[in-house]
Amino acid sequence: MTEMEKIKKEIEAYLPRIIESRDIPGRLGEAMCYALSGRGKRLRPFLFLKTLEIYSPPLEKAIPFAWGLEAIHTYSLVHDDLPIMDDDDYRRGRLTTHRVYGEANALLVGDGLFTLGCELMNSVNDAFCFERMQKALAVVLKAVGPEGMVGGQYLDLKGEGLDLNLSQLEEIHRKKTGALITASLLSGGILGGAAERELGSLEKYGQELGLLFQITDDLLDLEGDPRKTGKSGHKDAILGKATYPGLMGIEGARKKAEEKCQGAIYAAKTLGEKGRVFRELAEFVLSRDM
Amino acid sequence: MTEMEKIKKEIEAYLPRIIESRDIPGRLGEAMCYALSGRGKRLRPFLFLKTLEIYSPPLEKAIPFAWGLEAIHTYSLVHDDLPIMDDDDYRRGRLTTHRVYGEANALLVGDGLFTLGCELMNSVNDAFCFERMQKALAVVLKAVGPEGMVGGQYLDLKGEGLDLNLSQLEEIHRKKTGALITASLLSGGILGGAAERELGSLEKYGQELGLLFQITDDLLDLEGDPRKTGKSGHKDAILGKATYPGLMGIEGARKKAEEKCQGAIYAAKTLGEKGRVFRELAEFVLSRDM
Repeated sequence: MTEMEKIKKEIEAYLPRIIESRDIPGRLGEAMCYALSGRGKRLRPFLFLKTLEIYSPPLEKAIPFAWGLEAIHTYSLVHDDLPIMDDDDYRRGRLTTHRVYGEANALLVGDGLFTLGCELMNSVNDAFCFERMQKALAVVLKAVGPEGMVGGQYLDLKGEGLDLNLSQLEEIHRKKTGALITASLLSGGILGGAAERELGSLEKYGQELGLLFQITDDLLDLEGDPRKTGKSGHKDAILGKATYPGLMGIEGARKKAEEKCQGAIYAAKTLGEKGRVFRELAEFVLSRDM
Repeated sequence: MTEMEKIKKEIEAYLPRIIESRDIPGRLGEAMCYALSGRGKRLRPFLFLKTLEIYSPPLEKAIPFAWGLEAIHTYSLVHDDLPIMDDDDYRRGRLTTHRVYGEANALLVGDGLFTLGCELMNSVNDAFCFERMQKALAVVLKAVGPEGMVGGQYLDLKGEGLDLNLSQLEEIHRKKTGALITASLLSGGILGGAAERELGSLEKYGQELGLLFQITDDLLDLEGDPRKTGKSGHKDAILGKATYPGLMGIEGARKKAEEKCQGAIYAAKTLGEKGRVFRELAEFVLSRDM
């Protein structure tokens, strides 16, 4: 996925520059840059930009929106890693933000990145019609709020140590991971002027990709090489969290991942030739080792 | 301030209804409502609506924006009260959110209220031109981000136990409290179509009012009746925080509050007859006992 690498490099160059250009006190800006650095895949900006690209818009004008998605995703990681939440020491191959800057500062880094993300998404102010911009922002906000990502994290914490069934597990991941992945696709489609039917395909694709992503995450937590994944490893078992391999065995989880990959490819096909990149992405996620 | 009471009652009735109407899992919605309840003054929505009113717009269409400001203010209180931040047990006359629902849930309540606030502000979608709406939202986001409120809280924590001078103390409060107060006025003005000169007056008024508010807060922390203020009392001394009475004595702080009140009244006068409510508000804040 060389296109993914290109977008990744751009984000890793520009997002810190934006933060440095602002009047942020003390080491807070530095801590925000730290949280954003490390080995992120930058999947959400990629999904947004690749969707938008289908509709031949002035792509470079929409780039701050893509950065905003990554800032919001990173905020959620920083808060989730805090000791009062999942208590993680490593993320993206480095010490987590609170391990370097302290818990109070990490909380503020998360709050700051969320605000910055909203600011960036709200700053796309020419070349696109305002109505579409407002709608695209609304879709992302709904996805990351208490009905989406925040609600998913709530359910995830609540479910620790409990015997969850498959449908409860899927609800957690649909909200916690799937919602923002889907919103990254939908906001690109909305900004580009996709038809309702196309938005339906993007939503279906995002839901399948989101679960595929989570299942492979669970498998990597069990079988992955921490030097490659950049995470602590075996965290799910330590926290007593329900996982796909835990519910259906490693082979069952692998089969489920293949099903989700096929579902994603099927949804992407309805987008026509321009949806090819999404078919490739699903296969890439299925076989990822980091 | 009977007008303030009216807006307060509306917010206290409608914000919980919005939360209840959403598909929020478990007790997360209940915890969000808890954080919003209790004896808040609802100052920011009041400032927004009263400013907007000057420009005779369809006021009722803008009410979700006002609620969004209160949701965002409340998010900041919930996070600030956490043990890793200011570690407060009481707020608005009741146990703080983390004392009732636990720390992890309180963190998510804050995240959820922030997102909900942005959603509400972004939902004002007819009767106002999109360009103004985007600008009003941008002003609020900048005020609550790392250059504003989040940055102020960072400086506040960093300054605990240090000997700050007056200009350092004012910087903290300008960012931590003043920025959102000012943005509540400015966003009302922007949405209503205020001229640049009027926005300048609103900004000046907001800055003076914000500091006046903080100085009276410091005085109430020392001399106030916790049954009225709803706060723990003497928290500043316990946390080793710099305060106005600490830097200039109780009499000096009272004098400073009067100066700020006069400054606010002066700025409000340039708004003409319609700015009368702001002059009254400054006097009300100067003499408040809660």
